[in-house]
Amino acid sequence: MFTMTCPTMQTERDLAQLVGIDWGTTHLRAYRIAAGGQVLERRESSAGILTIRNQDFVSALQPLIADWYAHTRPGPTLPMLLCGMVGSRQGWCEVPYRSCPSRISDLASALTAVDSPWGKALFVAGLSTEDKHRRYDVMRGEETQIFGCELSGQRAIIVTPGTHSKWCISKDSTIEHFRTYLTGEMFALLRSHSSIGWLMPDEDRTIQNEASFLDGVRESRREPNLLHSLFSVRSGALFDQRAAEAHSAYLSGLLIGSEVHDALRRYRASMVSVVATASLGRLYEAAILAAGGTAVRRIDAELAVCRGLWNLWETHLKQAKP
Amino acid sequence: MFTMTCPTMQTERDLAQLVGIDWGTTHLRAYRIAAGGQVLERRESSAGILTIRNQDFVSALQPLIADWYAHTRPGPTLPMLLCGMVGSRQGWCEVPYRSCPSRISDLASALTAVDSPWGKALFVAGLSTEDKHRRYDVMRGEETQIFGCELSGQRAIIVTPGTHSKWCISKDSTIEHFRTYLTGEMFALLRSHSSIGWLMPDEDRTIQNEASFLDGVRESRREPNLLHSLFSVRSGALFDQRAAEAHSAYLSGLLIGSEVHDALRRYRASMVSVVATASLGRLYEAAILAAGGTAVRRIDAELAVCRGLWNLWETHLKQAKP
Repeated sequence: MFTMTCPTMQTERDLAQLVGIDWGTTHLRAYRIAAGGQVLERRESSAGILTIRNQDFVSALQPLIADWYAHTRPGPTLPMLLCGMVGSRQGWCEVPYRSCPSRISDLASALTAVDSPWGKALFVAGLSTEDKHRRYDVMRGEETQIFGCELSGQRAIIVTPGTHSKWCISKDSTIEHFRTYLTGEMFALLRSHSSIGWLMPDEDRTIQNEASFLDGVRESRREPNLLHSLFSVRSGALFDQRAAEAHSAYLSGLLIGSEVHDALRRYRASMVSVVATASLGRLYEAAILAAGGTAVRRIDAELAVCRGLWNLWETHLKQAKP
Repeated sequence: MFTMTCPTMQTERDLAQLVGIDWGTTHLRAYRIAAGGQVLERRESSAGILTIRNQDFVSALQPLIADWYAHTRPGPTLPMLLCGMVGSRQGWCEVPYRSCPSRISDLASALTAVDSPWGKALFVAGLSTEDKHRRYDVMRGEETQIFGCELSGQRAIIVTPGTHSKWCISKDSTIEHFRTYLTGEMFALLRSHSSIGWLMPDEDRTIQNEASFLDGVRESRREPNLLHSLFSVRSGALFDQRAAEAHSAYLSGLLIGSEVHDALRRYRASMVSVVATASLGRLYEAAILAAGGTAVRRIDAELAVCRGLWNLWETHLKQAKP
């Protein structure tokens, strides 16, 4: 468990207005949040929902948040809002997907409450979208990040890169449509289990070689069929076209390039907001600019989720008033 | 070890003119071959080259072929010709790639000899091809299958589906160009290790649902970006759009469809020769016809490799004559 305690904790405890939980398949993060989405304290554990046995979500959460409730003054307890796969069929409480287009007020009015030792725990719904051929797409967790991105009235393109990257169109504070790419999962699969992963030294786990990364991004434009382009990792190794330490960066460029070229073309986007950690955000920024994007706005993924949880809570409160 | 003994073995032993070995990373197959490439006897083991320790290829081959040499009449021994990854850097003897375009006579004159307990063992070279952007592609083993396909003078498109499918252009008995797709490996990866593989029941290992397979082939045309289309396996499951037993067939359709659409478009092909086992050949035939191909010629992969080994040997003999 990682704890970041603010020096002025005693004072700030009283400022806390919300406990926000971002709970995915492989991570659990808890935030003590003040008005406006300001993060007072952040804690995390590796108890992703895949690790939870017998539906015992309470025991996994207990060590992270119990003391945040110990000093709560009498009266209404600190509200708790949860987003991510914890609201899926495999999670604590299944909240049905809401279909796009979806406004923040739609999600705020659809929070699902479950009793917990800390009062009502409120779950945010995921979103679904459907195309004209009846192909569905889904997200859980990213909708909260997106609603933390200060959506303006204008059409905006927002990407939340990761295991399953989501590219979203928003307009007038509404998520209109989105599109998932399996990019992060595919990288991990190929890295760990494939014949091209075998070529990569163990220490080559991070993407440090920007030239090879960009070489992959360019190749993904020339050669959009991934089943073919992936083989160039192997043939490039056979013909000594790049250093062994660079295969991983080139592979990452092929995959992120495939995603970025396709999304920029489909969404006819030039300005893109990237909601990510610093390292992944840097890669996406480089790929988007290399693929013809003209401007990238970088947004920290954790700050976005906290602001999104706050915005949802505030909207919910306003709806509750007569 | 699987042995298929012909009833008239005693007579036919004298007909044998060549021992052909197709030795890949995961399989080892040995054939006793008569004039014209006719297979007199076939044996196989699971001693693919990845299983060989200390370069001891002889011990792995011994149980399959030793008795074929026991009765060899005095004089020249039965020649032995080997193709596949056994001729790679990880194999018994590294034979450099020859670059395309390549005629059968080029390969027949480049056989590499290594001493063995059964006389000289001759290795067939692999092929490489290079595009104008200096991207290489390689094959080892498939070139022998292709030279077993009775290439006419006309331009022909031949596919050898599998872990790494190869699409080849041949003309005037020359392999002009080819293109690899990681299709079979990708299917196995996604089936065994990915979040979409988890959706598939264990018994769903073979592709039996042709309607779902063709649904995947059609979807791969509508949605050429694989990183996105693969997610429709998952969203289709969430929205109960297909039976659990059909996910695997749909995934196979997405992948084979991606390969086939791309190759037919690039090679502007309508008639395609498919060199495969019966079950894989049937899938490729269905996918090619659904993707706009007008005719498919099916060729058994093992017969092709034996005819190819024979054709290479016969060409080699002719070259040796003054």
